[in-house]
Amino acid sequence: MSLRPTVDFLLHDWLKVENLQSRERFADHSRETFDAVLDTCERIAREKYAPFNRLVDTQEPHFDGEKVILPQATHDAYKAYAESGMLSAAQDYDIGGMQLPYTVEAAANAFFAMASVSIGSGMLTSGNANLLMVHGTDLQKQVFAANEFSGRFSGTMCLSEPQAGSSLSDVTTRATPDGDGFEADALGARYRLKGNKMWISSGEHELSENIIHLVLAKIPDANGQLVPGVKGISLFIVPKKMVDTNGQLTGERNDVALAGLNHKCGWRGTTNTLLNFGEGKYPVRGHTGAVGYLVGKPGEGLRCMFHMMNEARIGVGMAATMLGMAGYYASLDYAKNRPQGRPTGAGGKDASQPQVRIIEHADIKRMLLAQKAYSEGALALALYCARLVDEQHTGTSDDADVARLLLEVLTPIVKSFPSEWCLEANSLAIQIHGGYGYTRDFPVEQYWRDNRLNMIHEGTHGIQAMDLLGRKVLMENGRGLQLLADRMLATAAKAEGSWGPEAAALRDALQQVGQATQQAWDGAQPAQALANAVPYLQAFGHTVIAWIWLDVAASLGQDDTPAAQGRRAACRYFYRYELPKIGAWLNVVSSRDPTCAELPEEAF
Amino acid sequence: MSLRPTVDFLLHDWLKVENLQSRERFADHSRETFDAVLDTCERIAREKYAPFNRLVDTQEPHFDGEKVILPQATHDAYKAYAESGMLSAAQDYDIGGMQLPYTVEAAANAFFAMASVSIGSGMLTSGNANLLMVHGTDLQKQVFAANEFSGRFSGTMCLSEPQAGSSLSDVTTRATPDGDGFEADALGARYRLKGNKMWISSGEHELSENIIHLVLAKIPDANGQLVPGVKGISLFIVPKKMVDTNGQLTGERNDVALAGLNHKCGWRGTTNTLLNFGEGKYPVRGHTGAVGYLVGKPGEGLRCMFHMMNEARIGVGMAATMLGMAGYYASLDYAKNRPQGRPTGAGGKDASQPQVRIIEHADIKRMLLAQKAYSEGALALALYCARLVDEQHTGTSDDADVARLLLEVLTPIVKSFPSEWCLEANSLAIQIHGGYGYTRDFPVEQYWRDNRLNMIHEGTHGIQAMDLLGRKVLMENGRGLQLLADRMLATAAKAEGSWGPEAAALRDALQQVGQATQQAWDGAQPAQALANAVPYLQAFGHTVIAWIWLDVAASLGQDDTPAAQGRRAACRYFYRYELPKIGAWLNVVSSRDPTCAELPEEAF
Repeated sequence: MSLRPTVDFLLHDWLKVENLQSRERFADHSRETFDAVLDTCERIAREKYAPFNRLVDTQEPHFDGEKVILPQATHDAYKAYAESGMLSAAQDYDIGGMQLPYTVEAAANAFFAMASVSIGSGMLTSGNANLLMVHGTDLQKQVFAANEFSGRFSGTMCLSEPQAGSSLSDVTTRATPDGDGFEADALGARYRLKGNKMWISSGEHELSENIIHLVLAKIPDANGQLVPGVKGISLFIVPKKMVDTNGQLTGERNDVALAGLNHKCGWRGTTNTLLNFGEGKYPVRGHTGAVGYLVGKPGEGLRCMFHMMNEARIGVGMAATMLGMAGYYASLDYAKNRPQGRPTGAGGKDASQPQVRIIEHADIKRMLLAQKAYSEGALALALYCARLVDEQHTGTSDDADVARLLLEVLTPIVKSFPSEWCLEANSLAIQIHGGYGYTRDFPVEQYWRDNRLNMIHEGTHGIQAMDLLGRKVLMENGRGLQLLADRMLATAAKAEGSWGPEAAALRDALQQVGQATQQAWDGAQPAQALANAVPYLQAFGHTVIAWIWLDVAASLGQDDTPAAQGRRAACRYFYRYELPKIGAWLNVVSSRDPTCAELPEEAF
Repeated sequence: MSLRPTVDFLLHDWLKVENLQSRERFADHSRETFDAVLDTCERIAREKYAPFNRLVDTQEPHFDGEKVILPQATHDAYKAYAESGMLSAAQDYDIGGMQLPYTVEAAANAFFAMASVSIGSGMLTSGNANLLMVHGTDLQKQVFAANEFSGRFSGTMCLSEPQAGSSLSDVTTRATPDGDGFEADALGARYRLKGNKMWISSGEHELSENIIHLVLAKIPDANGQLVPGVKGISLFIVPKKMVDTNGQLTGERNDVALAGLNHKCGWRGTTNTLLNFGEGKYPVRGHTGAVGYLVGKPGEGLRCMFHMMNEARIGVGMAATMLGMAGYYASLDYAKNRPQGRPTGAGGKDASQPQVRIIEHADIKRMLLAQKAYSEGALALALYCARLVDEQHTGTSDDADVARLLLEVLTPIVKSFPSEWCLEANSLAIQIHGGYGYTRDFPVEQYWRDNRLNMIHEGTHGIQAMDLLGRKVLMENGRGLQLLADRMLATAAKAEGSWGPEAAALRDALQQVGQATQQAWDGAQPAQALANAVPYLQAFGHTVIAWIWLDVAASLGQDDTPAAQGRRAACRYFYRYELPKIGAWLNVVSSRDPTCAELPEEAF
């Protein structure tokens, strides 16, 4: 009952991640080096994260007027994570990285997400630095990214604003040139930013020497107007404390101020903030306005940021998945040890029989198997997507292009499926515990609270659905959808022998999804086609996970260990209990059901 | 956007509750008296409950070593509720009651559940006293019940024990005769109880002068052995403080001690306790053991308690429902006022258009309409069941018998459907709020946390499912199921004209449920038949709510007000988006799918 054998199975037996050694970039790696990374992360997660998960839930970050105070455990975990080298795991050897495949990096980080999602690992920091490695100048890489990889600085993503959550085109943070010669600053064209950013995770704390904010803002035109829409958005590096070109702190604060901490339902170990940029609390060189250095070209901010957002979406999906796994293991353990009730015999319950442990009740098994099917299925998908990232980065140009397009289609699923169904898994974990599960003496209610965020941040369920049906399945004339269909059909063909009914069900589901896609768009305005985008996303997600489970099951061959039996059962469960749900979801997509969209506001 | 018009519509236009005036018991009542009760409850809920709902979430009950401390607001609310007369609303005039129909009482109490479910109204106290009015002696009624109806005493139900949650047959609390002449105590045969009771709501507090525990315990046989199973269970009145035959406190504590407060995920305003009975902390007359007075006959404790549990289950369903309504109203208000995004035009989003409020987005409308369909549908069902209670109590003997049997079948649904789907409604309410919904600055995350309890207490989802498929649809040769089917078919016939497709869909769903019921049991052992009882419960619940919505819709006639349009849309929503889900649930019931039940423990 540990995560590691499942991860090992998925990485090695299923995804054959060792094959990556044939790529030049990964030539020095082997099963041994991968194992060493996983061992280290598993250990740190067990020692520095898991024991403190409830503590960080109860000792929320608070602001003492000067500083945001976090528990000592969070500092210790941050330090241990940084020292593990995981922040730069994927980077080149010559800047101190491990050239680790992303697949292994994602698997290794999963241990932290399971042990304590809200203590957090370095996802935002390494994502921030990764972005700079792609879009930054050499000096930006040296001064900012390198110090993030070492853990000396940490990073944030500043997108949302209080009045503009999902709607990035409405950001009103302004960036104006910082005096004459602003373009000549060594760290990048220098602007002054003014505006408010909301929902900024790790936006203020004392864990690191400095915090590097990546901020979306608009540069006004010659008349001082902001360009409407996302085209006017640019990206800036805004350090909390000013740094020189050697990456040393100059001793000056930048004009970025904490305006408030958000008090959340869960995920309470992570500081979440409202930040004011350029309100004048910390003037720099006598002037109001937060100093920001342009990254990339003006107007291309969102394009640069999307580089970070896709990885962030896989990361959110992985976080949701690992909360699901955590609840599964906790409730499995409870079910194996809690005696209650009697076996149901021919005449019903017999009170004279000895008590049984609750794992012997069919409904408890159903709730366990559902959790396993959701969570392990989601984990397999997340690692599959991570493997596509490696293919995109190191495959032949054709393979890389295929991987890129598959990722476009699968990203909304890898984010949304676990957000919804591993949350449901957590609810089942509570249910297995009965009243105890609803108390704060057991971990499962926290998993459930923590997991509720995942359908919201990094693009809500509704945003993922519009992205999938409105963009991803249409792009390049539907080539992404076709590539995915090809892979599903290949799995069905491979599984034909031992998994005939499931292979047929997968083909049928794929056909239904394809037909619904066409019918949704057939002569329709976008508003009509997209009115039921979320049910479409749900049906698509269930079809993808059905495919993943069949692929996993078909890879088991003659293996008859308990673990293999469990995987086969999870596959069967998914085809019998879950996949049949897609009909109800797709009906309203195919018919473009207008019941909701057309209801006038006053009728609610 | 207020609950009252919906309640008025359901009570008067749909259920025609005024017709109850023709019953002798309710002859003095009228629309005016009903309105007066609703007005009062609505006002008290608005003034004394709603403003303090967040406060009681953050200021949890705590034990200072002597007393359990609750916020002043809880004291004020308790007082206002008791003074309203609602505790005895259903009782006879001659003991100070209002002879109010249960339908109106349930509707009136709904306002409190919506305003603050965890401050709580008097459900347990009046349920406790109601039980004594049926099963108690005259003196037990005078001393205990009458003082509970006035609010001087409050009441609890003590069923569960730490080692026996859902499995009441395993209670080990022992009741032994309290010395010679124990049978002659004026308050009832006197026993001494020893044991621990878990999950006792309002088990300790200072809101009332005394707390009257109704406790399930076993009387050992001549050899000192406890009879296995539920047949050995008896019911006792165990007051926290000893009382004389005039209901005056004698000044002595009874041997009941608080062993711990449970710290819960939600519902934090209500004290929930572990109580030790008879551990000797407060010896009575020099002896250890909590003094308890037998209610009814020995061995009939569970039968007596079930009288209370059925009303409690309707109450839990109503609580879940009203949390759903609360989230619906909160998110509707938010959606009408939050500007974000642009209308989707022919070419997608146009950033040059003015912002719209989020209620103008189709997916927001979908999430609102789902909440309305779940919550108002559940409310209609709860009031329908309440009306059956009135029929059972005041109808002709034939009608009463029909009502009794319909209630047997519907009780698992009225409890389970809102527990599951109004929880989902609360999740949608969070989703509509986006990141704000996940913060404690908005009420919806609390509704969601509070609601999670409802699938657990008063019989878990699994227990409701076994009760439905294992007992209720079988009892009296399936007559209850047949009676329900007759009512559904009558609705379908009535709706035929304007709601043809829905009427057909309801008939089809009913046929599917009937067939699945047969196939589940056809030659099966109980363990096989019941292995998928929860999916059966889910399908049954969706069919029942579809019926309720069709009956509501068919009752609207030519009404074309916005409210009527909204109800028609909710009905359509339920038939198009929800009812089609039953196929997936029933498949595994009909096939008695063994995937979960047969998986060996080591394969998880």
